[in-house]
Amino acid sequence: MKKIKAQNITKESFGAFGDILDIDGSPDKLINAGFCERYNDRAKLEFTNGKAGISIFNAKARKLPYEFDMLERHPDGSQAFVPLSGKPFLIIVAGTNTENKPHQPQAFITEKSQGINIYRNVWHGVLTPLSSPGIFAVVDRIGPGTNLEEYFFNEKFQVSL
Amino acid sequence: MKKIKAQNITKESFGAFGDILDIDGSPDKLINAGFCERYNDRAKLEFTNGKAGISIFNAKARKLPYEFDMLERHPDGSQAFVPLSGKPFLIIVAGTNTENKPHQPQAFITEKSQGINIYRNVWHGVLTPLSSPGIFAVVDRIGPGTNLEEYFFNEKFQVSL
Repeated sequence: MKKIKAQNITKESFGAFGDILDIDGSPDKLINAGFCERYNDRAKLEFTNGKAGISIFNAKARKLPYEFDMLERHPDGSQAFVPLSGKPFLIIVAGTNTENKPHQPQAFITEKSQGINIYRNVWHGVLTPLSSPGIFAVVDRIGPGTNLEEYFFNEKFQVSL
Repeated sequence: MKKIKAQNITKESFGAFGDILDIDGSPDKLINAGFCERYNDRAKLEFTNGKAGISIFNAKARKLPYEFDMLERHPDGSQAFVPLSGKPFLIIVAGTNTENKPHQPQAFITEKSQGINIYRNVWHGVLTPLSSPGIFAVVDRIGPGTNLEEYFFNEKFQVSL
C-alpha cells in the first residue's frame, strides 16, 4: 500500500487541478452599501454539450487514514464543491500521464469556509467529507451521457496527515 | 414602520421566488459506490447575455429585528446563495406588482445546511447572514452591464421572529 500525506491546500499546490473558492486576496467589489465584499468569478467553469446546474450531494463522512484505489474524471465538465457545513474536507487529485491515466495522486485538506472547483477532465477521488453531515452544493454539468471515466489502480493508496 | 414576521422557509411558501437547495425528498441517484446521494439539478438557473459563474460574498452578519427600506433585482440572471457556514440566514423577497414595483415584502429564515436560488428578476433584499462569518458561494450571471435595479420604499420595514 502506498502512503500519501495530505497537504494543506494552497493556490500554488492545487492550481494545476482547480480553483480554491474563498475570500483570499482583495475583494473585487464592495456591494450592498459596503456591507458585502464580492470576490468575483473565482471558478473556471467549463461545460461541453450541456449547461451549468446546482445539485446537492450528501456523502458519508470518512476518517483518516483513508484508503482508495480509484480515481474518476468528467470529460464534459468542471465540478465545484461547496460544503454546506463550511468544514474542511479531503480532496484527492492527480495529473494525467502520457497514457491518459492518472499520475501519482496527491491529497489536500481544505480550510474552514472554503470550496473548490475541479477543472474539466482532471482525475480526482470521490467526495470525501471529514465530518458529518457531508452536504455539498455541487456546480457541475447537466447534460446527456455518462460524463464519467474511472481508473482503478493495481494497489491501494492510504492518505494520512 | 411596517412589521414583518420571518417565516421558516418551505417549498410551498418560497416556491414563487426561488428554489431551496437542500436534501429534501429522495436522492435522484446514488453515486460513489453508494457512499453519496445526488439530488440532481435543484436550481432553475437562468442567465441572459452572460454565463454562470461562482463568486464568493462576505457579508456582515445582521441581527433581528432587522430594518430595511430597499429591495433589488437582477434582470439578467438568477442568483444562488450557498452559505459556507451552513448556518441559517435571512432572505427577504417580494412579488412584482402591475407597476413593476415590489409588492409587500416577505421574510424567510433558512434551516441549517440549506442554500437558496432566487429566480431571475425577483425582488429581494441584500444578503443578510445572521451569524459570522457571512461567507457564501454565489452562483450568478457573469456578463456586461449593471444587471441591477433598486427600489426604495417610502417607509422602513422591520423583520422579526
